[in-house]
Amino acid sequence: MTTEQDQWRELGQQLRVDSIRSSSAAASGHPTSSMSAADLMAVLISKYLHYDFGSPDDPRNDHLIFSKGHASPLLYAIYKATGAIGDEEMLTFRKFGSRIEGHPTPVLPWVDVATGSLGQGLPIAVGVALAGKRLDRLPYRVWALCGDSEMAEGSMWEAFEHAGVEGLDNLTAIIDVNRLGQTGETMHGWDLEAYRRRAEAFGWNAITLDGHDVADIDRALTAAVETSGPTVLIARTEKGHGVKAVANQPGRHGKPLDDPDAAIAELGGLRDIHVDVPKPAFEGRPHRFPTAELRLPVYEPGTSEATRKAFGDALVALGRARSEIVAIDGEVGNSTYTEEFAEALPERFFQAYIAEQQMVAMAVGFQVRGWRPFAATFAAFLSRAYDFVRMAAISRANISLVGSHAGVSIGEDGPSQMALEDLASLRAVHGSTVLYPSDANQTAALVPQMADRAGIVFMRTTREKTPILYEPGEAFVIGGARVVRQSPEDAVTLIGAGITLHESIKAADALRSDGIAARVIDLYSVKPIDAETVRAAARETGAIVTVEDHWPEGGIGDAVLEVLAAEQPHPLVTKLAVGGMPTSGTPAELMAAAGIDAHHIAEAARELVSRTGGRERSTSEVGGRRRE
Amino acid sequence: MTTEQDQWRELGQQLRVDSIRSSSAAASGHPTSSMSAADLMAVLISKYLHYDFGSPDDPRNDHLIFSKGHASPLLYAIYKATGAIGDEEMLTFRKFGSRIEGHPTPVLPWVDVATGSLGQGLPIAVGVALAGKRLDRLPYRVWALCGDSEMAEGSMWEAFEHAGVEGLDNLTAIIDVNRLGQTGETMHGWDLEAYRRRAEAFGWNAITLDGHDVADIDRALTAAVETSGPTVLIARTEKGHGVKAVANQPGRHGKPLDDPDAAIAELGGLRDIHVDVPKPAFEGRPHRFPTAELRLPVYEPGTSEATRKAFGDALVALGRARSEIVAIDGEVGNSTYTEEFAEALPERFFQAYIAEQQMVAMAVGFQVRGWRPFAATFAAFLSRAYDFVRMAAISRANISLVGSHAGVSIGEDGPSQMALEDLASLRAVHGSTVLYPSDANQTAALVPQMADRAGIVFMRTTREKTPILYEPGEAFVIGGARVVRQSPEDAVTLIGAGITLHESIKAADALRSDGIAARVIDLYSVKPIDAETVRAAARETGAIVTVEDHWPEGGIGDAVLEVLAAEQPHPLVTKLAVGGMPTSGTPAELMAAAGIDAHHIAEAARELVSRTGGRERSTSEVGGRRRE
Repeated sequence: MTTEQDQWRELGQQLRVDSIRSSSAAASGHPTSSMSAADLMAVLISKYLHYDFGSPDDPRNDHLIFSKGHASPLLYAIYKATGAIGDEEMLTFRKFGSRIEGHPTPVLPWVDVATGSLGQGLPIAVGVALAGKRLDRLPYRVWALCGDSEMAEGSMWEAFEHAGVEGLDNLTAIIDVNRLGQTGETMHGWDLEAYRRRAEAFGWNAITLDGHDVADIDRALTAAVETSGPTVLIARTEKGHGVKAVANQPGRHGKPLDDPDAAIAELGGLRDIHVDVPKPAFEGRPHRFPTAELRLPVYEPGTSEATRKAFGDALVALGRARSEIVAIDGEVGNSTYTEEFAEALPERFFQAYIAEQQMVAMAVGFQVRGWRPFAATFAAFLSRAYDFVRMAAISRANISLVGSHAGVSIGEDGPSQMALEDLASLRAVHGSTVLYPSDANQTAALVPQMADRAGIVFMRTTREKTPILYEPGEAFVIGGARVVRQSPEDAVTLIGAGITLHESIKAADALRSDGIAARVIDLYSVKPIDAETVRAAARETGAIVTVEDHWPEGGIGDAVLEVLAAEQPHPLVTKLAVGGMPTSGTPAELMAAAGIDAHHIAEAARELVSRTGGRERSTSEVGGRRRE
Repeated sequence: MTTEQDQWRELGQQLRVDSIRSSSAAASGHPTSSMSAADLMAVLISKYLHYDFGSPDDPRNDHLIFSKGHASPLLYAIYKATGAIGDEEMLTFRKFGSRIEGHPTPVLPWVDVATGSLGQGLPIAVGVALAGKRLDRLPYRVWALCGDSEMAEGSMWEAFEHAGVEGLDNLTAIIDVNRLGQTGETMHGWDLEAYRRRAEAFGWNAITLDGHDVADIDRALTAAVETSGPTVLIARTEKGHGVKAVANQPGRHGKPLDDPDAAIAELGGLRDIHVDVPKPAFEGRPHRFPTAELRLPVYEPGTSEATRKAFGDALVALGRARSEIVAIDGEVGNSTYTEEFAEALPERFFQAYIAEQQMVAMAVGFQVRGWRPFAATFAAFLSRAYDFVRMAAISRANISLVGSHAGVSIGEDGPSQMALEDLASLRAVHGSTVLYPSDANQTAALVPQMADRAGIVFMRTTREKTPILYEPGEAFVIGGARVVRQSPEDAVTLIGAGITLHESIKAADALRSDGIAARVIDLYSVKPIDAETVRAAARETGAIVTVEDHWPEGGIGDAVLEVLAAEQPHPLVTKLAVGGMPTSGTPAELMAAAGIDAHHIAEAARELVSRTGGRERSTSEVGGRRRE
């Protein structure tokens, strides 16, 4: 008669064998990093994980996140053992067209988030666990399998800090301390106490154990479930455990085994154990917050308001109307104006403190559970979480990011606080949306659309108050542009957004007094861009000045040039952007120094018109042909 | 008779008064965050800091880094007290044209690095301290003034971890625990023990103290100098200390005082104390490593090699030839090939483990002391340190970053490991250089130039082996491009770099069999770009296909479009880039799926030629005019 512990041991061996088989079939992958954690996972999935693999969307399911995403062979071996996938599919690991990818992605319905950039799974697990406690209010548990190498990532300690402060007793981290990183020993090797000291200092329960002793694992997991506060299991393991040729050997990271058949024989051969993972053991539905009708804020044309304030106002309105809206801020809520949401809807506001990686990870974790987060900080500081945003796109996460204090127009604080690369970096995220509203009513109109849009949705807001241009209630769709000045005589087009739209309007006024009619386009949707409006302006005016409070690379100018790439006739295009390192100064001084104020726009327009011949040119002629 | 302690107290009051004066003159800034740390700094600069303000380049100088850069009024008040700047200049704080910027930058000769994005000063200080111990081998000390809010940044714990592991007894962090962040209380308020537990767990000596008691500060600083290992002073302070209207009050962050005159009176009025900061008290010159003649590696045309390997080879050669070259890796040295440097020149190799923020911070710290670091990891994971790179540009830092495993061509590992946004994000860094070599000999030729170039210099390397195209010793300059195929009949230009150059060459071969002559340009220098070569190709062929293993935004295609923005006639341009989320697969499968292989390049070229009319078109005609 086999005991439960024997079954766990056997399952551990099966998970090892299958990790070897899939990576050998792929001729790549990380079997040894999988083998170290196999016993930990065998006990977890047999007794502690509560998950209905037939209903991955059941809100009562636990969450199992492989923070060490390269142990994907182990994860897929688990899926096979549970019956979620078949053996044949498991062996398509890393093959083109297979959903059994090199690192886990949510192409598989049981995978919450993509991992593989180390140090991200645990911070996201904190977000899911926080959703369980404060949003869903359901007693599911979150399990994160972590590598020891990734403990060097600061983001892991942001996660430890937040989980500790929030007292997340529904979160268990399991550190697979196999001692060996990709190239050598980790900082702390098998010094389990080093991890214990750190974890306890950050307010966690820490349990050290032998990660290959199923009784010890069982004891530790029982303790994790019973303790209050977050718990970390610090498990001493061997990389490649069970196969002498690779066990605890350097130089065996990320490689299939040299002799998989011998290894499988050494592990006792193939097995076909099916695991009945416990199903969720409670009843309950996710909590929903009371809602009311959506009443967006309105701003009186002729007055002025900052778009960051309009964002804050609109977010409160949206939150009141929709239960799933939540807000997170990086401890600058009085700058981004999420403070209004915090005051109005405190149950759905989360303080990320000065920890932007954890902020974005929390957002990703919330959306795993169907909540719709808006995470806000200075746009410059979103750069701190760029890898998290990159991975969020691979996770197919639906999150909104809002960055205030864009560009040199913030003034005196100087370049460290100025976002000048945010449009470029966030445009270069797959499937992203990049909005840069120019007016408070427009901002308010866009905020609800952000919550309905798939992917990474970024809004850049402006620190300074700017004139209200549009009537309350005017329609602005993502992917649109607004022509704010237009006439049949237009000899040049000025394209700006945010603060530079207002400079463009001033420039158009100045040009009019020179007898030059200028079209002005509000490119509030930088990605997707309204290609038709831009192309029509190109055809009809033959000359375009783009202007942005951003470095020259990757922003509005490049977005415009891209849609004109194959246009014939092609307009003359002058890109105005911030050319030199800014300093402190007033917004006006800095915009002038950067060459992006009305004066410089008008100058650039005049120069272009002098080359195209302006209105002497008929619209049927080749656009932008030199007339000198 | 005034005692030393009385003098320190008086100096502390002066630093407060001057912080109030400068921020009031600016009508912005952070006086209250300066006032909390004034006593700490008064004692430090009077007795412990060793620095010759007349010789900021003296290698024996200590380093004082304000990790809480927003306390800049305090820093400038210190500079005034030392005589480095006059009172009048101090009062130009935040004014346009002044070097007394909102947050410190190295425009001032006494500022090592720009700060103001929290959580960066201490990691950089770790780099400087490490340079002191292992490179310069001089006993200068590094002092970092940290805020309590920024302790939430994971990067701080990367710094604690590295300093602890490296045993940096020349490093002292001073945490100004004033309890209040920008919007509210920090996570730990005045719980000094919370910080102590964390710091000690990370292997630091931790000393708690009253940050307004100069005797206690003196005692703590003495202990910091005497202890082995890194030391942190955890100082309980009051934000706005000394002025009742603001002391320990919420809502006083980042604002000048309402009544500065009353506050100054309350603090005892203006003072004009001059501090004689102790000068460096030892003799010695920075260590230099033995050097030999530069012998770059050579690769035989007709064979194949990966550019990442050529980088590794060339870096060793450069390191042997130049003492100031150092290498840092994010624990993937067998992927980036810095492992060769680690083996050949172990004294100048630094393991950053899986802590990319600390890796870049270390590089910035090394270059503060004149060393020339190359920091390498997978290009995808440089995104983890994007804020550090952004700030490094503001620091006018000269560092080289090398990212391997670019694009979908890495194959089976899947999207988490693929850099697809690195060209965009690193082009959008002020003054950056972006290289993407296509051949091993070319890579070797570029590596020494990276070490001579100012600013952030990024090289993207390729995982796969690619054919050697160029002879050893051929000249390739930063800012150049290489025309690898050219004829008077060229009807289209193909522009690629790295892996896509090789696909472009294959496409040109295929096109030739269709009777279409294609020019092929190796755009190995993406920024700066060789505008003349691109423009000449545009004029002479009228049709351009750009192709890159990168998202469509912000990379090679956009760099090409930018230099063509005002070209008339304008060529037809088709941009090929990675359009959909990649999966796992072979490099060839993934490049085909992404639409960036030779087949797709040739298709795009044929389509363009069908529109331009190809060689029916004479080069004197308008480029790219439709002939249909």
